[in-house]
Amino acid sequence: MKKQQQVPITAYRSDGFIGKYQQLIKDTVIPYQYSVLCDEAPGAEKSHVVQNFINAGKAIRGEDVGDGFYGMVFQDSDAAKWLEAVAYSLAVLPDPELEATADKLIDIIADAQDADGYLNTYYTIKDQDKRWTNLLEGHELYCCGHMMEAACAYFDATKKRKLLDVMLRNAEHIYQHFIVEGAPGYPGHPEVELALIKMYRMTGNQHCLDLAAHFINVRGVDPLYYEKEVASRSWSVWGSDGKNPDYQQSRRPVREQTDAVGHAVRAVYLYTAMADLASVTGDEKLLNACKVLWDSITCRRMYLTGGIGSTVQGEAFTVDYDLPGDTAYAETCASIGLMFFGSRMLENRPVSDYADVMEKAFYNTVLGGMQLDGKRFFYVNPLECLPGISGEAVTHRHDLPTRPGWYACACCPPNVARLISSYGQFAYGENDETAYCHLIAAGEITFRSGLKMRCETGYPYDFTVTYRIEKGGRLAIRLPGWSTATTLSLNGNAVALTPEEGYQYMDVKDGDVLVLTLDDGVHTVYASTKVPQLTGKVALGRGPLVYCFEGVDNGGDVLSLALKRDGRVTPSAFEADLLSGVVTLTAEAIRRTDDGDLYSTTPPAEESCTAVAIPYYAWANRGENQMRVWMDETR
Amino acid sequence: MKKQQQVPITAYRSDGFIGKYQQLIKDTVIPYQYSVLCDEAPGAEKSHVVQNFINAGKAIRGEDVGDGFYGMVFQDSDAAKWLEAVAYSLAVLPDPELEATADKLIDIIADAQDADGYLNTYYTIKDQDKRWTNLLEGHELYCCGHMMEAACAYFDATKKRKLLDVMLRNAEHIYQHFIVEGAPGYPGHPEVELALIKMYRMTGNQHCLDLAAHFINVRGVDPLYYEKEVASRSWSVWGSDGKNPDYQQSRRPVREQTDAVGHAVRAVYLYTAMADLASVTGDEKLLNACKVLWDSITCRRMYLTGGIGSTVQGEAFTVDYDLPGDTAYAETCASIGLMFFGSRMLENRPVSDYADVMEKAFYNTVLGGMQLDGKRFFYVNPLECLPGISGEAVTHRHDLPTRPGWYACACCPPNVARLISSYGQFAYGENDETAYCHLIAAGEITFRSGLKMRCETGYPYDFTVTYRIEKGGRLAIRLPGWSTATTLSLNGNAVALTPEEGYQYMDVKDGDVLVLTLDDGVHTVYASTKVPQLTGKVALGRGPLVYCFEGVDNGGDVLSLALKRDGRVTPSAFEADLLSGVVTLTAEAIRRTDDGDLYSTTPPAEESCTAVAIPYYAWANRGENQMRVWMDETR
Repeated sequence: MKKQQQVPITAYRSDGFIGKYQQLIKDTVIPYQYSVLCDEAPGAEKSHVVQNFINAGKAIRGEDVGDGFYGMVFQDSDAAKWLEAVAYSLAVLPDPELEATADKLIDIIADAQDADGYLNTYYTIKDQDKRWTNLLEGHELYCCGHMMEAACAYFDATKKRKLLDVMLRNAEHIYQHFIVEGAPGYPGHPEVELALIKMYRMTGNQHCLDLAAHFINVRGVDPLYYEKEVASRSWSVWGSDGKNPDYQQSRRPVREQTDAVGHAVRAVYLYTAMADLASVTGDEKLLNACKVLWDSITCRRMYLTGGIGSTVQGEAFTVDYDLPGDTAYAETCASIGLMFFGSRMLENRPVSDYADVMEKAFYNTVLGGMQLDGKRFFYVNPLECLPGISGEAVTHRHDLPTRPGWYACACCPPNVARLISSYGQFAYGENDETAYCHLIAAGEITFRSGLKMRCETGYPYDFTVTYRIEKGGRLAIRLPGWSTATTLSLNGNAVALTPEEGYQYMDVKDGDVLVLTLDDGVHTVYASTKVPQLTGKVALGRGPLVYCFEGVDNGGDVLSLALKRDGRVTPSAFEADLLSGVVTLTAEAIRRTDDGDLYSTTPPAEESCTAVAIPYYAWANRGENQMRVWMDETR
Repeated sequence: MKKQQQVPITAYRSDGFIGKYQQLIKDTVIPYQYSVLCDEAPGAEKSHVVQNFINAGKAIRGEDVGDGFYGMVFQDSDAAKWLEAVAYSLAVLPDPELEATADKLIDIIADAQDADGYLNTYYTIKDQDKRWTNLLEGHELYCCGHMMEAACAYFDATKKRKLLDVMLRNAEHIYQHFIVEGAPGYPGHPEVELALIKMYRMTGNQHCLDLAAHFINVRGVDPLYYEKEVASRSWSVWGSDGKNPDYQQSRRPVREQTDAVGHAVRAVYLYTAMADLASVTGDEKLLNACKVLWDSITCRRMYLTGGIGSTVQGEAFTVDYDLPGDTAYAETCASIGLMFFGSRMLENRPVSDYADVMEKAFYNTVLGGMQLDGKRFFYVNPLECLPGISGEAVTHRHDLPTRPGWYACACCPPNVARLISSYGQFAYGENDETAYCHLIAAGEITFRSGLKMRCETGYPYDFTVTYRIEKGGRLAIRLPGWSTATTLSLNGNAVALTPEEGYQYMDVKDGDVLVLTLDDGVHTVYASTKVPQLTGKVALGRGPLVYCFEGVDNGGDVLSLALKRDGRVTPSAFEADLLSGVVTLTAEAIRRTDDGDLYSTTPPAEESCTAVAIPYYAWANRGENQMRVWMDETR
């Protein structure tokens, strides 16, 4: 298979389920986030993001820096992710007023850039001598990376170059420092690598590519690098000792890494860049490392919901087959990063498995990260929630029963915003031969090849997907791995399925109507018996959605329910008024009633009942509540 | 019911199962531990305990302190717990050579006591000005408490007063400081309270009782006490900030505490002293708090094995019904402390439930804490062990698949030694009316009333217990709660059971033969559906023993096994050569074989099989191995 890549952001105009979410991001998330950045959101913690840039500008000009810097060392990235989300949103839902606001913020950011190209408000305001001395914790490159992504997105969406030029100067500054001057080290939090490759792709700037390759190639070559860095400086942000190279994936050179380890977001951002670089350079050894790491995640370290990171300690992967549901970390950002990684693996080779995982991550963990009204967010996405334990026990403090408001460390909300707004780029890809439909996304899509079509579907609740071809060409449609009863018809005539690596390749002509129908059945899912937490358990899914059981639908108690093996599971009609519109599942079950003792030699009494499941992404929208994905099974 | 109390240590001479363990302690554990204390054990970490006392003696006499102090701040307590174990052992298995060694150590300890009665090598050697300034971390009172327990035990066993006199002077010194001079504060680690009550009982010294009552009564009256203490001093042992009063049970006055919280060993040592004090003073309010806390533990926060402490974070209780098996802390010492607490509750009122819990803790967690050869020890006693995850994942580092050797923090091994050596005091009690058999312990027992008898049994593997009465009197025999088919016969004639709070009271005459027969069936145990980790699971038990499944008996894999509901479970004959002699259980089961995928919509294939279980206490004696107590259940 030939490589392919994401379509430009302007290629897709959304509709349907994705369209509704993109509208929510535009109407609710983006304005609210902007008010937070400007410290105008009532009740939100102080952010100071915009003011930091204004104050950094003053510092550059030698003026009094006012109230200085406030916030986390990576505070700048909030502005970057907001701008990136705005860019994508402008592309799909134009809004001149929003664009003017963004332009103004870009002016402020540009003013905060030093003459030498350096851009970071923390160091510019607080201590310019500390630049580049703390790659372990300092997040300078991380912030640059996010701003580069914003710059690419804003240019892609609006064709305005100002921020792109700012970030090209910034990239050149970094190039001078690390390549020309040969400064040691690489980013503690990978991000700039994937951003630099975006910059390279957007501009053709070779220094961007070389710099990305440099950071990827030097990583882990000296596994003691961070320890030495810590020893060489007299300051620290959080007192990290740099002695756990796994945390930032630097125990071994990247091509020799075989297990997904450490901080899950850092891991998938790094792997994304590795796959990106492999795609650009054709580095087979690097691509092979990516495949091994992909398998490490998806075959042994990923929750059913596409969540990754089994522990709050380091927000990290643990070991193979350790997937506790109630103490999961499964950070929203990590699943977003997993989608990035999957998308880059697809670029290297269109194999539907990658898209299956992306879809799983999106429809479950990523969407579950946001309240249905777009106003509150989960960072942590457990597969089981137990009020009284979750959020209470010291081991469960991070697993909250309801979504909190905006955090001081606001990584996830803007990440969700930019992911949803750019969904079209994950859904559709192309190379000079073929237009690819990786994910199902209703709306209008125009490929560079000229192929243009409308996708009509109520997916993920409707399993008929109609593609109306306006302008023909060569098309590849992914046949989702979870669908065991897939059919395709062209102008009413069945198409014999001849999938290549999970894609059906075909030529379509102007006016053709292609109808994909997918398995609308409920699937029961079992985990490998190697996963200790999941033996004897079963989960329900339909299409890409994982379902969960909440107390509110089940008499307040889901722990005492067990699903019947081979019991009937009935999907409801689409319930438009429930949870912003869902299909629920009603399953034959038993309810156990015990004698109240902690331990008893009498088995609990059982009575038949039905149990109601909702899509996982919609949980915790009706107050504090028990929730369970993996249910006991009985017969 | 009238109060009763433990018999003197000399009242019981062991035989059978307990006798074998007491012999192991004498032959293996006590000599090895002494060689550690003297830094003569090959391969063990440096202990320096005896040398610390020698050096403290030099400091007292104004001589050069040689190599000074080495070890943890509570290092002295290792000597105390060893001496206490030796005392109990001498009482049941006399050994003049060992007694001479102990006498010598007592001389060294006595030499380390300051003229004012102060005794602690850490402070005496390192900095006498720091005495009593760090009750939060300093463990001074903790070390005194253990030495007082040793003193009582040594006097009880040998009638030698030297150490008792040392510790009476020490108690008087503490009394002067905290009562006469009115110094604020109370022990960060409860222990001295229960020890002072032992001293009071052994000597009648009223200051000991008053001091114990004082420490119990002031605890938690000012929940900010430790925070203030931290603020008032310029040094620290570990940097504790004193801001979590739950950790040392000081959030509220003890009579108002309702939930078992914080460090589990501290908790049960405190509750033991509270129950002790209530027993001495008749304080109903205090006794009631003890009952509430007992229920908090045993009805909602205790593992099936009698383990307590659901998390390694603070080695602590968490919240109700949170009982993860694989990440359990369940420290050996905590279950020993739970036995102390149960024994003191029995003293207040002989109710068999207390003894049921003591037995559960003893035969499972306490015995499981020691390797069968007496040479290695678990501090942490999980109910599930998974090589590859246990001991490896950051969340499971503390849950080791095999017992480590002697730790620098050597609390558990000597605690096991003293508990086993003094088992008779937990098994038998008395008041001026009645002789009590709380736990089944083969051997000869002589009560103060003159009642004397032999107990003959192969318990816990034999469920017939014969009591041969040499000298008659009034007797109360506990009918274990787990036995649903208990019979009692006197000289061959059935006795109609008329239990009062779980005890059968009766008069026996010289020459009577009393035979107790207990339920020898296997019981299947279910947990409350409120325990999220245990829904759908079942465990096996027989008599007081909880069983577990190890990989070595089950084809290397216990995760894929599920026990059949109502399936046959067959006990083996007693296998004398297996695991120092056990009865195994063979259960009808199924084995699941999956397709190797992490998640699959196909249920794993199943085939009928048998699964073999061993007593939990015997696990991890055959190398690194999967182990599971709570098994999936199927039909």
